[in-house]
Amino acid sequence: MKDVKLKVYLSGEIHSDWRGDLINEAERLLLPVEFLTPVITHDASDNVGVDILGVEENDFWKDHKAAKINAIRIKNGIEKSDVVIVKFGEKYRQWNAAFDAGFAAAMGKPYIVIHPKEFTHALKEVDGQAMAVAEHTDQVLKILEYLTLQE
Amino acid sequence: MKDVKLKVYLSGEIHSDWRGDLINEAERLLLPVEFLTPVITHDASDNVGVDILGVEENDFWKDHKAAKINAIRIKNGIEKSDVVIVKFGEKYRQWNAAFDAGFAAAMGKPYIVIHPKEFTHALKEVDGQAMAVAEHTDQVLKILEYLTLQE
Amino acid sequence: MKDVKLKVYLSGEIHSDWRGDLINEAERLLLPVEFLTPVITHDASDNVGVDILGVEENDFWKDHKAAKINAIRIKNGIEKSDVVIVKFGEKYRQWNAAFDAGFAAAMGKPYIVIHPKEFTHALKEVDGQAMAVAEHTDQVLKILEYLTLQE
Amino acid sequence: MKDVKLKVYLSGEIHSDWRGDLINEAERLLLPVEFLTPVITHDASDNVGVDILGVEENDFWKDHKAAKINAIRIKNGIEKSDVVIVKFGEKYRQWNAAFDAGFAAAMGKPYIVIHPKEFTHALKEVDGQAMAVAEHTDQVLKILEYLTLQE
Amino acid sequence: MKDVKLKVYLSGEIHSDWRGDLINEAERLLLPVEFLTPVITHDASDNVGVDILGVEENDFWKDHKAAKINAIRIKNGIEKSDVVIVKFGEKYRQWNAAFDAGFAAAMGKPYIVIHPKEFTHALKEVDGQAMAVAEHTDQVLKILEYLTLQE
Amino acid sequence: MKDVKLKVYLSGEIHSDWRGDLINEAERLLLPVEFLTPVITHDASDNVGVDILGVEENDFWKDHKAAKINAIRIKNGIEKSDVVIVKFGEKYRQWNAAFDAGFAAAMGKPYIVIHPKEFTHALKEVDGQAMAVAEHTDQVLKILEYLTLQE
Amino acid sequence: MKDVKLKVYLSGEIHSDWRGDLINEAERLLLPVEFLTPVITHDASDNVGVDILGVEENDFWKDHKAAKINAIRIKNGIEKSDVVIVKFGEKYRQWNAAFDAGFAAAMGKPYIVIHPKEFTHALKEVDGQAMAVAEHTDQVLKILEYLTLQE
Amino acid sequence: MKDVKLKVYLSGEIHSDWRGDLINEAERLLLPVEFLTPVITHDASDNVGVDILGVEENDFWKDHKAAKINAIRIKNGIEKSDVVIVKFGEKYRQWNAAFDAGFAAAMGKPYIVIHPKEFTHALKEVDGQAMAVAEHTDQVLKILEYLTLQE
Repeated sequence: MKDVKLKVYLSGEIHSDWRGDLINEAERLLLPVEFLTPVITHDASDNVGVDILGVEENDFWKDHKAAKINAIRIKNGIEKSDVVIVKFGEKYRQWNAAFDAGFAAAMGKPYIVIHPKEFTHALKEVDGQAMAVAEHTDQVLKILEYLTLQE
Repeated sequence: MKDVKLKVYLSGEIHSDWRGDLINEAERLLLPVEFLTPVITHDASDNVGVDILGVEENDFWKDHKAAKINAIRIKNGIEKSDVVIVKFGEKYRQWNAAFDAGFAAAMGKPYIVIHPKEFTHALKEVDGQAMAVAEHTDQVLKILEYLTLQE
Repeated sequence: MKDVKLKVYLSGEIHSDWRGDLINEAERLLLPVEFLTPVITHDASDNVGVDILGVEENDFWKDHKAAKINAIRIKNGIEKSDVVIVKFGEKYRQWNAAFDAGFAAAMGKPYIVIHPKEFTHALKEVDGQAMAVAEHTDQVLKILEYLTLQE
Repeated sequence: MKDVKLKVYLSGEIHSDWRGDLINEAERLLLPVEFLTPVITHDASDNVGVDILGVEENDFWKDHKAAKINAIRIKNGIEKSDVVIVKFGEKYRQWNAAFDAGFAAAMGKPYIVIHPKEFTHALKEVDGQAMAVAEHTDQVLKILEYLTLQE
Repeated sequence: MKDVKLKVYLSGEIHSDWRGDLINEAERLLLPVEFLTPVITHDASDNVGVDILGVEENDFWKDHKAAKINAIRIKNGIEKSDVVIVKFGEKYRQWNAAFDAGFAAAMGKPYIVIHPKEFTHALKEVDGQAMAVAEHTDQVLKILEYLTLQE
Repeated sequence: MKDVKLKVYLSGEIHSDWRGDLINEAERLLLPVEFLTPVITHDASDNVGVDILGVEENDFWKDHKAAKINAIRIKNGIEKSDVVIVKFGEKYRQWNAAFDAGFAAAMGKPYIVIHPKEFTHALKEVDGQAMAVAEHTDQVLKILEYLTLQE
Repeated sequence: MKDVKLKVYLSGEIHSDWRGDLINEAERLLLPVEFLTPVITHDASDNVGVDILGVEENDFWKDHKAAKINAIRIKNGIEKSDVVIVKFGEKYRQWNAAFDAGFAAAMGKPYIVIHPKEFTHALKEVDGQAMAVAEHTDQVLKILEYLTLQE
Repeated sequence: MKDVKLKVYLSGEIHSDWRGDLINEAERLLLPVEFLTPVITHDASDNVGVDILGVEENDFWKDHKAAKINAIRIKNGIEKSDVVIVKFGEKYRQWNAAFDAGFAAAMGKPYIVIHPKEFTHALKEVDGQAMAVAEHTDQVLKILEYLTLQE
């Protein structure tokens, strides 16, 4: 499958630069992979609704308008990808990551989860439908290398 | 639509008896609603994998086996329902609730979220695809009454 | 197909009682038809969002919350039906009726349109995908009779 | 997602040149967007059926033949696009725009609505399933810029 | 599978009473089968469009209106059935029978063809996707008996 | 839509060279169209099964093996195309053409029929789901020109 | 979910009476389960094609005709079921069992595998997509009890 | 269809180099075919789970982790291909090959089986849904040549 680029959507936490690291390493290894991502600039992502469509008094609607615009890109990303990577970091609730995993599962889209070991019990339903459960990003890199370059 | 029973899957937290309350109230109001639920006995749900299929040394696999058996009932419940209710409680990470919401979203199944106001920002992606966002179970009861009995 | 009840969703205008007339006539003729409808009490339909989920300062969000709750019943009705009837009346813009027709078309669900002759040009795209275009409700009654009772 | 061209179908009114303006601005900003449109030459669109397939005495069939040929291009455009823009202008009934929105909704295709503020109540069902509701074309331009260029 | 009624749609020629014969025999054998059919009264089927929706000068449109109304029942019948029987008789072109077979094939709906031996070459594409090719109706009866009563 | 090549599958009779004519004309007009076809060399198509997979005593199985190999290309052709052209000629039963039309209809794939006027009644079900019904190939050429080049 | 009967398709080996045992035990426990099965009378299953549709010289076609008739019931059984049980016995190649598992997997239908421990490596792909892997039928009985009766 | 590359997924046994032979011959004949394969290095395929994601005491989980990672590539390969080739060799149980065939069948993806004559009875269900059944790889080569180069 070397000639075909594998499309990989990178879902999950946006508080560390794991996406940049993974993309750089994949490029260094010349993996035939094309990465798709959500918007990862936190402020832009949170404010896009009110920035473009007008202010809201109520924070619920501010969030709502942003979430829906972001959903266009997220949905497109998951649908176009061959495999979805969902990373859960140490902090925050990250319900959007679990939502993306459920979305991928219902579409029959294979996904790989990355999370610290201590989340094993809390993430059992998310892990249960995953094609792989990793602890570190470099394990995902190795899986992508295997999926694309291994004869 | 009075003659047709609306099928409602109750996803989410299993630490309070919100399901029992909702079901009782719906029966008291004679709503033409049929409720579907996951297993809500915590211990049974956590241990079903090893109880039936044999012990595991590693907690990851114990959870894995349980999660997959439970997934049969959850998937069936969501697929058969006309609307999914997803309740986020005050405690725990509840990633399975967000997973169910994403699963429903990808299937084009309408869902309603219940969560405390302080989760608004963290749940914006889950709320963004919902048909309604409530704070209390009795609001969901009123929506079910409206969907089934209102001329 | 006499033994099987045909499920018919009645979409479109809610300013005349065409649904009640059609349902009564169908009952009088003992047609094996089961009708599904949206909420047709105008005030209830318009206000359900704020009535149940809390007031909104901005009319956009008041309408938004109502439209989404109503969408649960509309979507269920269209999905469960065997044929959708979409009636355009003399008054108002009735964009929701055209929206329902497009929704049905994309699902491969057969639909029948009722509209006054003078709307022919304006409704050509809606008519173009319809299985029948009628001017009066009694024509639809005859089609339902034909579909269910004709040997 | 910079390397991937976003496919955007432009549905709705054909009485102003909003499509040309949007396309020009997108080109000026070097947005990686590919636009798909229906036929927007009014006369050609109205007469294509009889022009190619033969005259009709009855205007209904003249419109019918045109609507179906146009439907090939419209259906292809919506199916191939990543996001649909549906613009409602000040004039005419524009039921085809609402039809396209319903069609997109049923396919799970994200869409954005543009309409003047005074249509808020009449378009609530169309807005209710939209990913964004704008008043002006330049807001859509900003959303497309955000979806494609924002890191 | 004895307790479950097998739903069987009977497509194809309407110039002999093969449907009546098959249904009677199935009843005599107490087969747990529910039959669905198109309208088989030739005149009613041909004229339903103009009878209900108004006369047409042009025979093309007369046929068109009839074909679409009939399509509602045909489409419903195929979609609801577990297996489709398509019978080609000695006479007429019977393109609608081949159309129904193609429709069933694309939906992944199993179908059985009945046709005289001399049509083997002309029907090879239709036979090629069939689950069985019979020459006589009583062979289909035996298949239905096998599918429903054989332990 | 000028930049996007329209994919067109040419189904139907293989006894005249209508495909060659249409393709040549489309090239002469520089239409951005890509044509897909079944195998149209009659002998090759009829004998491919026994030629490659071994002789059969029984003509039924000879035809069967050929029809299935051809079905791979036909199915791929219809699935990949944006619009299907189905031509019925003066001769032969051409059930495969009607089968392809039914297949396309069930997939929601728009199709255009070409047939002589005298087949109107016999093809009413096939015409009923078509997006256009033409009598001559050059009308289809004009439709393809309209779909691809008309602003 | 006690009120809803769980539909269970029993795929796999037909050389022991594991189906009868499972069904009897389920009845004894009053499980709200409805079982669907293929034909399990070996001779009837092998010969149905030639018995009904006529003899074949070549064993390939004898098997072919039988396999396709059986496929109608198998396909229906899997599609209608909520969960599929696939049992691999000690003997024979049982490729049809693996085929059914792959069929279920592609449809997103949950399945449970039963097989002796020594098949673990050979069945890893089948086990990999399963919701549970059991060694004995009584483990499946417990899973069905859990899925239907556990609060 | 000469200009379009046919995508072919090569499933089945990995103990002979039939894939390499087929790919080389196809290149020699300049067939417009693009081949997709699973990982065919036996050791890499068996150990990928523990090599990347950590050791397992229990062989079941070692196999499980490997099978799921491999499933990403297999699923992608089948979904992207136009036709699947499934080869059964003389040795081993090869349940994964039958699983892939069932997976392809449920997706409506055409597949071709290669197997020695003595497996005819045991593979009847797999053959029954196939578009062609060959004994040797060079027959598949000829089919691919026919599908792509035959006018």
